[in-house]
Amino acid sequence: MKYVYLFGEGDKDMKNTLGGKGAGLHEMTRISIPVPPGFTITTQTCVYYFKHNDTLPHGLKKEVDNVLRKIERKMGKMFGDTDNPLLLSVRSGSRVSMPGMMDTILNLGLNENTVKGLIKNTGDERFAYDCFRRLIDMYGNVVMGISHGEFEEALAELKRKKGVKLDSELSSETLQELTSIYKGIIKKYGKTFPVDPHKQLWGAIEAVFSSWNNERAKEYRKLNNIPEEWGTACNVQTMVFGNMGKNSMTGVAFTRNPATGENIFYGEWLPNAQGEDVVAGIRTPHPLSLAEKEKSDSSLASLEKMFPRAYRELTGVREKLEKHFKDLQDIEFTMEKGKLFILQTRSGKRTPLAAVKIAVDMVDEGLLDKKEVIMRMNPGYITQLLHPMIDPKAKVEIIAKGLPASPGAATGKVVFTPADAVKMKEKDEPCILVRVETSPEDIKGIASAEGVLTQRGGMTSHAAVVARGMGKPCVVGCESISVDYDNKLFKKDNITVKEGEVITLDGASGRVIEGDVPEIKASFTPEFRKLLGFTDEFRRMGVMANADTPNDAKTAREFGCEGIGLCRTEHMFFGGDRIMAVREMILAETREERCKALAKILPMQKDDFKEIFRVMDGLPVVIRTLDPPLHEFLPKELESIKELARKMKVESSVIKEKVRILSEVNPMLGNRGCRLGIAYPEITEMQVRAIFEAASEVIKEGKKVIPEVMIPLVGSEIELVNQRKVVEKVAKEVAKEQGIEIDYMIGTMIELPRAALTADEIAKSADFFSFGTNDLTQTTFGFSRDDFFKILESYIEKGIMNYDPFQTLDIRGVGQLIKMGIEKGRKSNPKLEVGICGEHGGDPKSIDFCERAGLDYVSCSPYRVPIARLAAAQAKIRYRK
Amino acid sequence: MKYVYLFGEGDKDMKNTLGGKGAGLHEMTRISIPVPPGFTITTQTCVYYFKHNDTLPHGLKKEVDNVLRKIERKMGKMFGDTDNPLLLSVRSGSRVSMPGMMDTILNLGLNENTVKGLIKNTGDERFAYDCFRRLIDMYGNVVMGISHGEFEEALAELKRKKGVKLDSELSSETLQELTSIYKGIIKKYGKTFPVDPHKQLWGAIEAVFSSWNNERAKEYRKLNNIPEEWGTACNVQTMVFGNMGKNSMTGVAFTRNPATGENIFYGEWLPNAQGEDVVAGIRTPHPLSLAEKEKSDSSLASLEKMFPRAYRELTGVREKLEKHFKDLQDIEFTMEKGKLFILQTRSGKRTPLAAVKIAVDMVDEGLLDKKEVIMRMNPGYITQLLHPMIDPKAKVEIIAKGLPASPGAATGKVVFTPADAVKMKEKDEPCILVRVETSPEDIKGIASAEGVLTQRGGMTSHAAVVARGMGKPCVVGCESISVDYDNKLFKKDNITVKEGEVITLDGASGRVIEGDVPEIKASFTPEFRKLLGFTDEFRRMGVMANADTPNDAKTAREFGCEGIGLCRTEHMFFGGDRIMAVREMILAETREERCKALAKILPMQKDDFKEIFRVMDGLPVVIRTLDPPLHEFLPKELESIKELARKMKVESSVIKEKVRILSEVNPMLGNRGCRLGIAYPEITEMQVRAIFEAASEVIKEGKKVIPEVMIPLVGSEIELVNQRKVVEKVAKEVAKEQGIEIDYMIGTMIELPRAALTADEIAKSADFFSFGTNDLTQTTFGFSRDDFFKILESYIEKGIMNYDPFQTLDIRGVGQLIKMGIEKGRKSNPKLEVGICGEHGGDPKSIDFCERAGLDYVSCSPYRVPIARLAAAQAKIRYRK
Repeated sequence: MKYVYLFGEGDKDMKNTLGGKGAGLHEMTRISIPVPPGFTITTQTCVYYFKHNDTLPHGLKKEVDNVLRKIERKMGKMFGDTDNPLLLSVRSGSRVSMPGMMDTILNLGLNENTVKGLIKNTGDERFAYDCFRRLIDMYGNVVMGISHGEFEEALAELKRKKGVKLDSELSSETLQELTSIYKGIIKKYGKTFPVDPHKQLWGAIEAVFSSWNNERAKEYRKLNNIPEEWGTACNVQTMVFGNMGKNSMTGVAFTRNPATGENIFYGEWLPNAQGEDVVAGIRTPHPLSLAEKEKSDSSLASLEKMFPRAYRELTGVREKLEKHFKDLQDIEFTMEKGKLFILQTRSGKRTPLAAVKIAVDMVDEGLLDKKEVIMRMNPGYITQLLHPMIDPKAKVEIIAKGLPASPGAATGKVVFTPADAVKMKEKDEPCILVRVETSPEDIKGIASAEGVLTQRGGMTSHAAVVARGMGKPCVVGCESISVDYDNKLFKKDNITVKEGEVITLDGASGRVIEGDVPEIKASFTPEFRKLLGFTDEFRRMGVMANADTPNDAKTAREFGCEGIGLCRTEHMFFGGDRIMAVREMILAETREERCKALAKILPMQKDDFKEIFRVMDGLPVVIRTLDPPLHEFLPKELESIKELARKMKVESSVIKEKVRILSEVNPMLGNRGCRLGIAYPEITEMQVRAIFEAASEVIKEGKKVIPEVMIPLVGSEIELVNQRKVVEKVAKEVAKEQGIEIDYMIGTMIELPRAALTADEIAKSADFFSFGTNDLTQTTFGFSRDDFFKILESYIEKGIMNYDPFQTLDIRGVGQLIKMGIEKGRKSNPKLEVGICGEHGGDPKSIDFCERAGLDYVSCSPYRVPIARLAAAQAKIRYRK
Repeated sequence: MKYVYLFGEGDKDMKNTLGGKGAGLHEMTRISIPVPPGFTITTQTCVYYFKHNDTLPHGLKKEVDNVLRKIERKMGKMFGDTDNPLLLSVRSGSRVSMPGMMDTILNLGLNENTVKGLIKNTGDERFAYDCFRRLIDMYGNVVMGISHGEFEEALAELKRKKGVKLDSELSSETLQELTSIYKGIIKKYGKTFPVDPHKQLWGAIEAVFSSWNNERAKEYRKLNNIPEEWGTACNVQTMVFGNMGKNSMTGVAFTRNPATGENIFYGEWLPNAQGEDVVAGIRTPHPLSLAEKEKSDSSLASLEKMFPRAYRELTGVREKLEKHFKDLQDIEFTMEKGKLFILQTRSGKRTPLAAVKIAVDMVDEGLLDKKEVIMRMNPGYITQLLHPMIDPKAKVEIIAKGLPASPGAATGKVVFTPADAVKMKEKDEPCILVRVETSPEDIKGIASAEGVLTQRGGMTSHAAVVARGMGKPCVVGCESISVDYDNKLFKKDNITVKEGEVITLDGASGRVIEGDVPEIKASFTPEFRKLLGFTDEFRRMGVMANADTPNDAKTAREFGCEGIGLCRTEHMFFGGDRIMAVREMILAETREERCKALAKILPMQKDDFKEIFRVMDGLPVVIRTLDPPLHEFLPKELESIKELARKMKVESSVIKEKVRILSEVNPMLGNRGCRLGIAYPEITEMQVRAIFEAASEVIKEGKKVIPEVMIPLVGSEIELVNQRKVVEKVAKEVAKEQGIEIDYMIGTMIELPRAALTADEIAKSADFFSFGTNDLTQTTFGFSRDDFFKILESYIEKGIMNYDPFQTLDIRGVGQLIKMGIEKGRKSNPKLEVGICGEHGGDPKSIDFCERAGLDYVSCSPYRVPIARLAAAQAKIRYRK
């Protein structure tokens, strides 16, 4: 096995072996982009390391020595040479980017002797000792596990002693003194900073591998579903310095605007700085181009103006990379004494808006074909694209303005620590996390908050990158506010916002707004519409929507649904006068009383159906009969019970008793679904009458109505037969009364294991199946969806689960039942139509399964219709053969 | 198709066609027992009747005419002849006996003309008119649907008018007058009593068929799982009269004592009476033999004494029937003017005690072999046999004594109407139903009561038969009490027992006792022990017990279990000091606190295990780790919370908050089972330590201990792997500490659909599976066991279900998962042991399935161990090939 690849030996397709960063460096080297020479130790080596009790494989040293010699020859420098020393960086790099999660060590190769060579070589003693003291600090911290704070304290004390305020005011002598102090700190811990550069190198390599399993990396992997067993590669690269004086600089850039997708070069840089300075967001960076400077109203000089030659060279690199990778690239560059180096290129994180625009533009530009665009499009982007926006017409009180780091609007109570954000999440209270700046330790807090606001940092700062990845609205670099952790508040001029007060972030404009604010739905951009048009050319499965109201139906139709796959009638039972009639129905003691109350509900349900049928003109509408347990409609609190009693003119004890009788130990497994319709056929009768009267009347208006009646929670054929009879009877009656024969279907939810197990019997009485995977997941796992979050947390922590089966279908268990249900169902009824209408119908991974399982359609919430269209197309392309 | 069988054309194996009663009559005719000639119209004819909109098949009339002619020839009488008329009875008779549920009409063939022939033939005008008026009453009631009460009122009025008290005081003229009055009643309803005997006959036949679907028959079928589609046969038979003077009598007899099984002839009879008089329990009947008379301390003359010739003839019939049917027979006989007829024979209902004794005796007598006995034994009998008895040493206050109609002890509050019994059952309040006498309408009330007490009626009265069938303790003919329905009380001398007061019935001795009384477990009779010994010679599956306490374990071992298949550890968490320690554990905020509390529980659990291991010396004990949600251990009521807070020295708000946090919407699908052990491995650790320390210490006492650890609610292999590691770690630690290596197994419950679906994966980490069919039924159906009774009632009423899937395994659905689980499990782990430990492990029908599915063992509650042994043997014999 080959453990080591010299840059250029590998290529961009070797991410699994070289990691994402490594693959990029190899590829760039191949296509003659100026990359500082280096080599990659493979991810397999890391896996070996953990499997063999933290020991490196035998042949590794020889391979490293080998490539190191080649690099030395190329650079004309020697690693450890006191005259002309080569310095190295060691960096992690896994298959997918895990920004800031693992460790990096710079300036390796320096010691009391080689630092002399560096001084000689650069003529800058101060710089050389600064490099050296940074190495000792990083090495002590990363390899030896000593807190970075200890070194910082020593630095601060020295500054006090010398009476200076800034690091830059320290003389080279003082920095040299600092290297001794730092080495002393390491001594204190019974360790010694290694003099031998090779010892330094191997210490750093092991530390990078170990950092794969540090706590924050584990946490990040869990949140992002990255497998433990991938391991990280380790990139060893020649050091170049962006802080080697006036003719040096460092920066990051995106080949297109990652926020909007506009085809303009976009980036940030700092003169005379190291790369870390930009990413850490400690200094506010300069804009890349003049255009950008104007746009962002920055007072800082652009690269285009300050270093026009480097800027031109960089735009050349940009073009080359885009043509080569056919994707938005995120690059890091450094100019050392006038010579430009590209340190990294990778697929750039982007907003959903940008993702769509870039993909569609690239089709127009001839860089990609439609199929490529579809396959490359992350369905998650579309979710985010459909984030709500703040209503532009709303009058808002703007507290401050920062950088628009991740779009969407978020409202919540202000909290100041990640731990508080987690607590709020547990209480289901939306919150906004406000920080001076964020660090990798904050990930869980960011995941728990609705949005993030930071006082410091740029668009590529930690907070910005993480929030974009999660699709959370985020505003960064809002320097006009001052965050006061001690008193849990932040101030802007004379405005004070305390913990618990509500603010709204507009991640698209960077606005921080007082209180809650009216929001509007996201609307389609032309590019988005175009992209979805592409998907329809490729997909096989239909995409229906779960919509209960005319409004939902409208939205779904706008988003391109091909019908309503689940219309829940119970939602129509709440609200205004209806709930009173529903309660009368529930409190009825006799069939007669119940029918009287139902007669009051009938016209209201009918009106709802009429409106929905009108909106869905020409498309099928699957209406599910009453599903939830009746006690859900009754009040629980004493006060509400008393009020209801007054309104209904009964003793409140009557209502209390009825609530008691109807209450259940496990309502999810209780008297609901078709069990209600069987116990009280008059409820089904009323609903079916409402459906068919509504359909007849809308047909008379000249519209096309295709109603389908769906019976919930069926566990055996006889239940369906029972309800089917009721539906057919009433449909026949209405047809006679209205003089219209309507074509309709009767089907059932398959949402109990027993329904899937006996699907062959059930299919005999069903025109269609719709898998209710929410309930099916509950019963297959024995997990209550309402209580599950408590278990999921512990299960993810212990590595028992790595995803939420209520979000993404459990293919091994629930999927097995679905396959069984389809197979048995179609066997006994070849004409059976089969769909899915659980949450999973809008989840791309689950949709992929649905394609393989041969479902006819998926049905999902209106806002997920576009995602489903994309995912269905992707799945079809994936399994085309 | 042949619709009609002349008696003797069919035989005893044709019950499906001829019904039970019919098959008996045919068989008796074949073996020359004196049966009044007649014929049977098949059950298929009844099925035809209902399928064709209540019309009889075309060829039927011809067939009936045909056999009727043969009967007329044999009897030398003609149906409808005015000179020497043949009279007929028409009776229902389905495959299994449904006593009193369907209709009967007697004396068919009488009208104004033929009654003259009857007078001439019998010389008894009064008798003839009495027959005639009874026919009109029955016909009006059964065929024409007029209330029997109307006829009774007319009779009462006539008696008042004539100034007499008893029916027998009415003269033949008055009875003749009564026939006119009765016909007038029928006229009032716009109908006419048919003069034509053939018209009478066909009316009666249709009425008998129709009675299959009357309300009480439907109710009885539901309670007894008798399919709707069986239909009833209709037996038409020559009338013989036990009320034709002094030389006539009628009676019923059992070939052995149906209460004790003793091999003595046992029966009751009434001189000069019709059969109905005995069954209805209106007159107290005479004993059959002298021995019986003495035993029952009856003041009435025995048949043996009064009609010695008939008695001898009857004992001959008894012997012939027993040899022929090889079973206890229940016969009806009538002597008409000195000539003995057998009207019916059927397998006699018996007490469980009798069933066992008779079966075992018959093996000794050479009538049956062991296999036949096993196959014939109703496992339900064994349940009843294990009914508790009143402690003979208990001091009891006897209120009264009646006939011991159905054994067992029952305690409950007195109610006087079947409706009240049903209400009490709904409230889960045990009750005793007290009635003057019972009628078929009372079935639901009897089913709801713990026991039944009647003032009137004999051992074969309705109440007695029904209660025996249901296994309910029952005392009948307790004539010393007087029941007062109006004031809802009964009196005996100066004792008054009011509604709601508690009494205890001793169905084995006939005692009615004041209040609640100490009871003892049923013990094995020598015959019972012998029978169970037979079963062990045949069965393949092991029978284990579900036992949580040393006491349960002792009982189970006495009943012949081969180990403990389920020892639930949580039951040990309740009681005394333990619950406090458990609550401390639950309220712990940190792992340390939790461990401290667990350390207090450890010695208590260990002691329990030690005692159980000692009892089960040499047999395996499967111990399940903690299963229920933790909040089950916390108090719910405010007062208890306050008390706990005081004891634990915390604010009650702390406990309230913890209860709130731990509460779940659907606890059955919540944080329980292995989910607890995964979240808090220290709980599993403590339990495993208790198990292995206990095992080591008991082994050191010289006993053999075979512990098996079972992990509950596993849904995926990784959960089991997680808990398996904990078990192995602790077992290893204890082995080291104790210096004893114990052979043990680790297995899992399969109680979630997902566990069955992924059994191939789970089996890789399991030494055994135990199907937890209670939970598996809940999740497969989506039924909460705690709430299910409300649904079941409606489902049985609507014909959606005909059994309780929590009692008897749902083979189609749950069974499919079990088969899948076994198959997949054994495929990946051929050594896998597979058992079942849900309620179903003690249910004979479910055990039959377990045999077919290839399970290694069943585990059930201690009291069901004998039933399981029998059912397992039966299943093995059934599927031997």
